[in-house]
Amino acid sequence: MPPFEVPEGDPFGPHNLPYGVFSRAGSQERTVGVRLGDHVLDAGAAAVALGSPYAALLARPTLNPLLAAGRTAWSDVRRALTAWVTVPSHQETIAPFLHPLSSVTLRLPFEVADYVDFYASENHARNVGQIFRPDAEDSLTPNWKHLPIGYHGRSGTVVVSGTDVVRPSGQRKAPGDPAPVFGPSVRLDIEAEVGFVVGVPSRLGRPVALEDFREHVFGLCLLNDWSARDIQAWEYVPLGPFLGKSFATSVSAWITPLDALEEARVAPPERTHPLLPYLDDSEEEPGGYDLRISVAINGHVVSEPPFSTMYWTAAQQLAHMTVNGASLRTGDLYGSGTVSGAEPAQRGSLLELTWNGREPLELPDGKRTFLEDGDVVTLSAWAPGANGVRVGLGEVTGRIVAD
Amino acid sequence: MPPFEVPEGDPFGPHNLPYGVFSRAGSQERTVGVRLGDHVLDAGAAAVALGSPYAALLARPTLNPLLAAGRTAWSDVRRALTAWVTVPSHQETIAPFLHPLSSVTLRLPFEVADYVDFYASENHARNVGQIFRPDAEDSLTPNWKHLPIGYHGRSGTVVVSGTDVVRPSGQRKAPGDPAPVFGPSVRLDIEAEVGFVVGVPSRLGRPVALEDFREHVFGLCLLNDWSARDIQAWEYVPLGPFLGKSFATSVSAWITPLDALEEARVAPPERTHPLLPYLDDSEEEPGGYDLRISVAINGHVVSEPPFSTMYWTAAQQLAHMTVNGASLRTGDLYGSGTVSGAEPAQRGSLLELTWNGREPLELPDGKRTFLEDGDVVTLSAWAPGANGVRVGLGEVTGRIVAD
Repeated sequence: MPPFEVPEGDPFGPHNLPYGVFSRAGSQERTVGVRLGDHVLDAGAAAVALGSPYAALLARPTLNPLLAAGRTAWSDVRRALTAWVTVPSHQETIAPFLHPLSSVTLRLPFEVADYVDFYASENHARNVGQIFRPDAEDSLTPNWKHLPIGYHGRSGTVVVSGTDVVRPSGQRKAPGDPAPVFGPSVRLDIEAEVGFVVGVPSRLGRPVALEDFREHVFGLCLLNDWSARDIQAWEYVPLGPFLGKSFATSVSAWITPLDALEEARVAPPERTHPLLPYLDDSEEEPGGYDLRISVAINGHVVSEPPFSTMYWTAAQQLAHMTVNGASLRTGDLYGSGTVSGAEPAQRGSLLELTWNGREPLELPDGKRTFLEDGDVVTLSAWAPGANGVRVGLGEVTGRIVAD
Repeated sequence: MPPFEVPEGDPFGPHNLPYGVFSRAGSQERTVGVRLGDHVLDAGAAAVALGSPYAALLARPTLNPLLAAGRTAWSDVRRALTAWVTVPSHQETIAPFLHPLSSVTLRLPFEVADYVDFYASENHARNVGQIFRPDAEDSLTPNWKHLPIGYHGRSGTVVVSGTDVVRPSGQRKAPGDPAPVFGPSVRLDIEAEVGFVVGVPSRLGRPVALEDFREHVFGLCLLNDWSARDIQAWEYVPLGPFLGKSFATSVSAWITPLDALEEARVAPPERTHPLLPYLDDSEEEPGGYDLRISVAINGHVVSEPPFSTMYWTAAQQLAHMTVNGASLRTGDLYGSGTVSGAEPAQRGSLLELTWNGREPLELPDGKRTFLEDGDVVTLSAWAPGANGVRVGLGEVTGRIVAD
């Protein structure tokens, strides 16, 4: 009998192996962990015990050194880890370094450099357009089909799943009000997104081509772009969202390497407009990912947004973000934008799910337009893997606490 | 005769003592320097030679440890430095650690955490409004007088003065064009700004009050927020500037501590609208700074924007930026927004100086609407000090190079 076993079909089996950073009970010390079933492997300690050269990348308090190491190293480390958790002789060596997930504290897995947020779901953009500009001829702005719209967010307030979110205060002003008022946001919302994590930097002045996406991007996580709609509405013209978003952005504790998601690659939706060459992916390998997201409030699923519906791919977003010569750094994080499918039950924000509060959701504990204090929001997701086995993407969760 | 002397009235005399980071000729090693006249003092080496306890803050490759040390340490270190450069016995000890500025390479003085850019000049905002919305009833957006409008920029592309700026490429589309085209920006501009550098972090969920500005902000620098107007115009609705700004932001090599600018404090312009309590500075000490900026293209001065005209102060910007609970980190940088005075010759961008290209500038080497390849833009500034002696703020310069 092997020293440990992951049940067959477990979404966190040896086919997955996402990376995180954890601390053991009673310790503040951080180290890289790899999830295996309901355990986390202290990957650095295992590497040291096995005399692996990858100890230098894994016995570290953050994923950044591994992120910076590049695609060849990413593949080599993954191959090594796969052997450690599947070959019986290695299994015996690493068994002491497996800790039950329930016994550890998961940390922010990497130091976030720049954080950018996109707006890449056509369904989401059309819903928002219809809600806020009901009389407009086209619910999309004229640039939407020509470039992936994005903006920079606050990297210093990216927090790991499980961190409480303090309800932000700020200015708001309804159209008829004579002056703005100040107070806690009364329209606190979520945005269900996927975040992409940059590993390999690029040089200032040198764009990154579409086809180099996998050389720079290590993996992905789940991301909740908490949004105070009332603060945002009053502040965002003309320079975009600021305090309506900057109070917190939550990411999942596990970064799933792109290498674990090969089976999930799909073609993006058909393009309705010709694309400029730097964004034209018609000759590229499929740039979409079939990720099945679930949004729950207090344990009750309210939406299941399908990531495969995103109009702009992560590779296109990377190419666009750098086409002006802006450089990448290890730890750059970019969000996909709210994921909303075509169906009402696939919308990734309460703004859309309740149609700006006009159609409240019926939850077991009462109606919701926007979030109430004490609400716990959990995004979770999985992707199809080989042989019908799911690749688990974990979850990102957060509880709203009063100011 | 003392071992070194700074000419009387020199704007970089012992009353100033701005901080930077430099490398000696032929070396990549970085260390903290303090400017004295046309020399830079290796402050860490001097501290070690004098047995100073501040060696731990100064013998470092970046200003971040000093920034994080807090106001009491900032004052103590400044007092020590003042003694080192003025007391004869100390002067002899530190003389070997003074290097001619011409012999060193100046580096980015601190690691930039988050970068935020504001929009705080009423003259600038009105000029932009009149240029782009000539038919609007009010050239300011309705929120402008109620909050300091800001957005996050790209911290990874903040570069030190002297770094070449590659002309960015991107999408642009004139209103009559059927589709966007791609190519190098043809409307490359500057924005003359002042940048504020955060030293002491704050806790997530805890706003920083107006009166705590000086506990968190260490000092200021000059900042050129390079802007590709054509890229920006096509991309910025609805989420704000992105690639039109993210290719480069240049900062001066010297960070002037707020302690050197006590004589330059002035009241901001009279407020025309009542302010919410968290922004109401009517009972505070003067929050403005009388900084005299000069903008030169290829050595020819084209504008002299007065910072004292800024409607929103740096303290108000800090209070606003954190009022939603967003936390500060050591190394956060925020720009004032383009500084434009009331007079045409005080405008801080070519957009305004040429009224969107309609009134070209006459330079000795020809007409300019926007920047041409090879143009060198230099912002410099000084502030009034005690006894009529200027406090030099140095310069931020950059040359445009073809893509």
